[in-house]
Amino acid sequence: MAVSSSLLTSSLQGSMVTPKTLKCCTEFKCNPSNLSFQQSRHTKSMHLTHLGLLPSRKLSIWEQTDRFSSKDRIQCRAFEVENAPSFSVGKKFHLDDIIEAQQFDRDTLSAIFEVAHEMEKIEKNSTGSQILKGYLMATLFYEPSTRTRLSFESAMKRLGGEVLTTENAREFSSAAKGETLEDTIRTVEGYSDIIVMRHFESGAARRAAATASIPVINAGDGPGQHPSQALLDVYTIEREVGKLDGIKVGLVGDLANGRTVRSLAYLLTRYQDVKIYFVSPDVVKMKDDIKAFLTSKGVEWEESADLMEVASKCDVVYQTRIQKERFGERIDLYEAARGKYIVDQDVLDVMQKHAVVMHPLPRLDEITVDVDRDPRAAYFRQAKNGLYIRMALLKLLLVGW
Amino acid sequence: MAVSSSLLTSSLQGSMVTPKTLKCCTEFKCNPSNLSFQQSRHTKSMHLTHLGLLPSRKLSIWEQTDRFSSKDRIQCRAFEVENAPSFSVGKKFHLDDIIEAQQFDRDTLSAIFEVAHEMEKIEKNSTGSQILKGYLMATLFYEPSTRTRLSFESAMKRLGGEVLTTENAREFSSAAKGETLEDTIRTVEGYSDIIVMRHFESGAARRAAATASIPVINAGDGPGQHPSQALLDVYTIEREVGKLDGIKVGLVGDLANGRTVRSLAYLLTRYQDVKIYFVSPDVVKMKDDIKAFLTSKGVEWEESADLMEVASKCDVVYQTRIQKERFGERIDLYEAARGKYIVDQDVLDVMQKHAVVMHPLPRLDEITVDVDRDPRAAYFRQAKNGLYIRMALLKLLLVGW
Amino acid sequence: MAVSSSLLTSSLQGSMVTPKTLKCCTEFKCNPSNLSFQQSRHTKSMHLTHLGLLPSRKLSIWEQTDRFSSKDRIQCRAFEVENAPSFSVGKKFHLDDIIEAQQFDRDTLSAIFEVAHEMEKIEKNSTGSQILKGYLMATLFYEPSTRTRLSFESAMKRLGGEVLTTENAREFSSAAKGETLEDTIRTVEGYSDIIVMRHFESGAARRAAATASIPVINAGDGPGQHPSQALLDVYTIEREVGKLDGIKVGLVGDLANGRTVRSLAYLLTRYQDVKIYFVSPDVVKMKDDIKAFLTSKGVEWEESADLMEVASKCDVVYQTRIQKERFGERIDLYEAARGKYIVDQDVLDVMQKHAVVMHPLPRLDEITVDVDRDPRAAYFRQAKNGLYIRMALLKLLLVGW
Repeated sequence: MAVSSSLLTSSLQGSMVTPKTLKCCTEFKCNPSNLSFQQSRHTKSMHLTHLGLLPSRKLSIWEQTDRFSSKDRIQCRAFEVENAPSFSVGKKFHLDDIIEAQQFDRDTLSAIFEVAHEMEKIEKNSTGSQILKGYLMATLFYEPSTRTRLSFESAMKRLGGEVLTTENAREFSSAAKGETLEDTIRTVEGYSDIIVMRHFESGAARRAAATASIPVINAGDGPGQHPSQALLDVYTIEREVGKLDGIKVGLVGDLANGRTVRSLAYLLTRYQDVKIYFVSPDVVKMKDDIKAFLTSKGVEWEESADLMEVASKCDVVYQTRIQKERFGERIDLYEAARGKYIVDQDVLDVMQKHAVVMHPLPRLDEITVDVDRDPRAAYFRQAKNGLYIRMALLKLLLVGW
Repeated sequence: MAVSSSLLTSSLQGSMVTPKTLKCCTEFKCNPSNLSFQQSRHTKSMHLTHLGLLPSRKLSIWEQTDRFSSKDRIQCRAFEVENAPSFSVGKKFHLDDIIEAQQFDRDTLSAIFEVAHEMEKIEKNSTGSQILKGYLMATLFYEPSTRTRLSFESAMKRLGGEVLTTENAREFSSAAKGETLEDTIRTVEGYSDIIVMRHFESGAARRAAATASIPVINAGDGPGQHPSQALLDVYTIEREVGKLDGIKVGLVGDLANGRTVRSLAYLLTRYQDVKIYFVSPDVVKMKDDIKAFLTSKGVEWEESADLMEVASKCDVVYQTRIQKERFGERIDLYEAARGKYIVDQDVLDVMQKHAVVMHPLPRLDEITVDVDRDPRAAYFRQAKNGLYIRMALLKLLLVGW
Repeated sequence: MAVSSSLLTSSLQGSMVTPKTLKCCTEFKCNPSNLSFQQSRHTKSMHLTHLGLLPSRKLSIWEQTDRFSSKDRIQCRAFEVENAPSFSVGKKFHLDDIIEAQQFDRDTLSAIFEVAHEMEKIEKNSTGSQILKGYLMATLFYEPSTRTRLSFESAMKRLGGEVLTTENAREFSSAAKGETLEDTIRTVEGYSDIIVMRHFESGAARRAAATASIPVINAGDGPGQHPSQALLDVYTIEREVGKLDGIKVGLVGDLANGRTVRSLAYLLTRYQDVKIYFVSPDVVKMKDDIKAFLTSKGVEWEESADLMEVASKCDVVYQTRIQKERFGERIDLYEAARGKYIVDQDVLDVMQKHAVVMHPLPRLDEITVDVDRDPRAAYFRQAKNGLYIRMALLKLLLVGW
């Protein structure tokens, strides 16, 4: 959702929250039936929305002389505000949307992880399992991603919420029907309380959030972001290794195309004394933007061709799949790359006892099946953590802390 | 559903309801396990159904000498009755199925709108939000229509009901499996309490309703009917303009192929002193059947090529999309037609302050995006009204008034 | 699920249950966070699972000196046990998975049918309708089967449970993503409490059950098994005819390819004095393996080309569809086969009054539509019985007897 409603809340409550920019202001009269007065999910204060306003002008306050009848026109003012996905009040954080890994600072991460950890303890038919009763989540998938969809839907249902599903969202924008993403969002927000969107286009989630008056979670937008995956990766490291500061992480495999390793590298800059090792075939090396960013943030990194040596030093060996679909017709390059760094029993043998192997899944043969039986194989627990992180995000966006 | 069960109810209760025709009568003996004794959703009285009877003979009464054991055969009589989708008892209406816009008279419309208006006020986790708890709706879609499906599913879930979804209903009648619509309905009615069906063939909904012993809602059958859309259109006019008698409506765009404008024109004949303006490119003009029908009902109408003049007079400018898929290879004709009548700021400028712009959505560019910010742009509120209308229909069909 | 957890339960409880084999034993130390301590669904006793163990070694017991901190390693032992889908304790049965018709003996069938019969009586919003509240079923369909899917989902929801749906499970193992069935199962079991799987490959359900730590129901695996269909067929015979011992059943149509008739023939060997008649075109005759099995179990059978004579003798005429898709390009053979044995009014005329016609559905024209009106046409009741059987299975697997 756009921050507008929160801004109004602020102005009504005198809170200290200040949105970045307040660009312009329109005045108009309107039919009261066009205005909707809703209680904020976060602060329990009331705010006003107007269905006829452009998303970026959604904030409106009003002047009225007395109790209006349905015939009266009301004097309204609309402010245009910049979109800021999340901001903090006091010690806690307001999450309006989940758009990208970059939106989370260290304190937000820590607070989300605390909620995720509580989620692990929720039992069937307990009060906790009903905190989202009456809420409706729309999963709006423009491309199939069954794993991610089921994880979000399970999270919602584990908290007593309900789900509207479509894996066929492309139909909205199909050749024959062809509506804009913005129009689709304004329709779907009428049916639900939160939108989880998967899209094939980078930036789509941000556009959706700018339009929607309800929270939007980016469940992957093309080569762009997949923030809940980034969160579950960091959460898993904390749960498995017990710390994040001072951690040594080996990122292995397709570092050029894998958005998970890029996001993970990004989020690790939030912690101190982190050391990152890049281990990848030449054709899919980590790109310079991330390396430069890590350096600018004081995170030590090095590239290595020796998986065994890296594995022996690291707390986390984060393996990834070489993505065949990125190689087009160069199957020869793909075949050369995919076999180069395999996590197998030999790698386990040099790893420290407390270290873990992670993988965003699905895996092909970049981790051999015999590794599964080792307690340090953390990837299925990691997938399960995705459930807890998503439960936490849904709770935070819908009912707050 | 067929009216049979209501008829039985009537005969048992001595109510004044009389179905149109009672064609014939068969007598047979049957195994008691073939009979099912159910409480009517509408009247709380009991009625009898028999799984082995043809749909049109579903009504049966029985004679028995005493408490039957499972070994006895029971003497049954089956009556064949004409299907009549809805009929009234006293001041209120029994809705058995929602098949076509024509089934609603003015009083029924008014009563449905009253319920829809109540639906707008239902709050999360209130008693009202649970009135369909325990009910199961099957959305049986033979072609995808994500917008309509999500709207119905949201409506059901907002009232505490549950949903079985398929967008893949064509599989039932696929080449390999190939069963009739009637057989599919008799299977699906065993799994659910109400069927919402989208089909590619005109008349399919009526066939389904004639077969089913549970209510059927037509969510669009090919070029045929889409009655919940027609209802939400009329409801939106009433909510936005505040009246229906004396209304002036401009129907713009594809009037030849658009079933929404045809149904809307039809329903407007239920009101007094209505004036309709048709504004459309020549290739997609309103067909003569509707014009003749309007005339026969005393509704004034005229065709106009001047959108600006019509817009300045009307309470409602109802814009529609020119449907490219209807033009086949004549892309030239399509391109000529689609650009001809656009609702933009200039049109808004001549419209009256109380008037509104409506559109069944999705839109392409027949309404420019800058119109969205005007409070008179009612199309997203119209989409939202679809939710309330569908909540009302589900409530009325499942638990009555 | 693998039986391992039950074994542990046994050893902890001192119960008399003894699994077939206990192959080997490993000792290792592990991080306590890798262990999960869960209450058994069946016996309410606690058991231990370890996420890092191979499925076939999932059982583990542990030694510890005192209350462990999160830093300690725990001494574990893993046992490899043979997979045995179900076994009995006292008078009742533990169902761990539903994999194949063969897993049910006469007592188990009888006990399941008793539960199914109770399910018929569950009323909306009664306590019974909420016994699976808080449970989540994943329907993992690698090929579409809308009829079967809706039946299972209806069953789950009728008992208050929730559903995660995918008809797109092939995406997990698609060319680009390509994970093994085992990996998919280990991901999906993290999201749900029970998996209902449809797969295109014979044996897939058994592999899934060997991997999963939660119950798996086979909803059809290719040409292999479809055990809930087999159960509902036998249940329907008992409900319709009132007995199973001494029953005379005519199996008609495609006996070579129809897995339903093969499973039904198999299950009928559980009963006494059964007589089976095979009536089928030559190209799709019942195969020798089933005939030999029937003979070995003392079940009388004969082949006949005279449907009328068989129909006059039988309690059940079980008609099946000739499956066009099995004939490839030999449409001529298909056409010859499909018209040969039709159940119509003439067949009904020679059938006994208490006998019934069954069919697994969908039907084409192998039963004429006029048969539907006869009370002895049991096929739609049979489909409905599928709901009750599936409700019973879900209840038994999730909350026990």
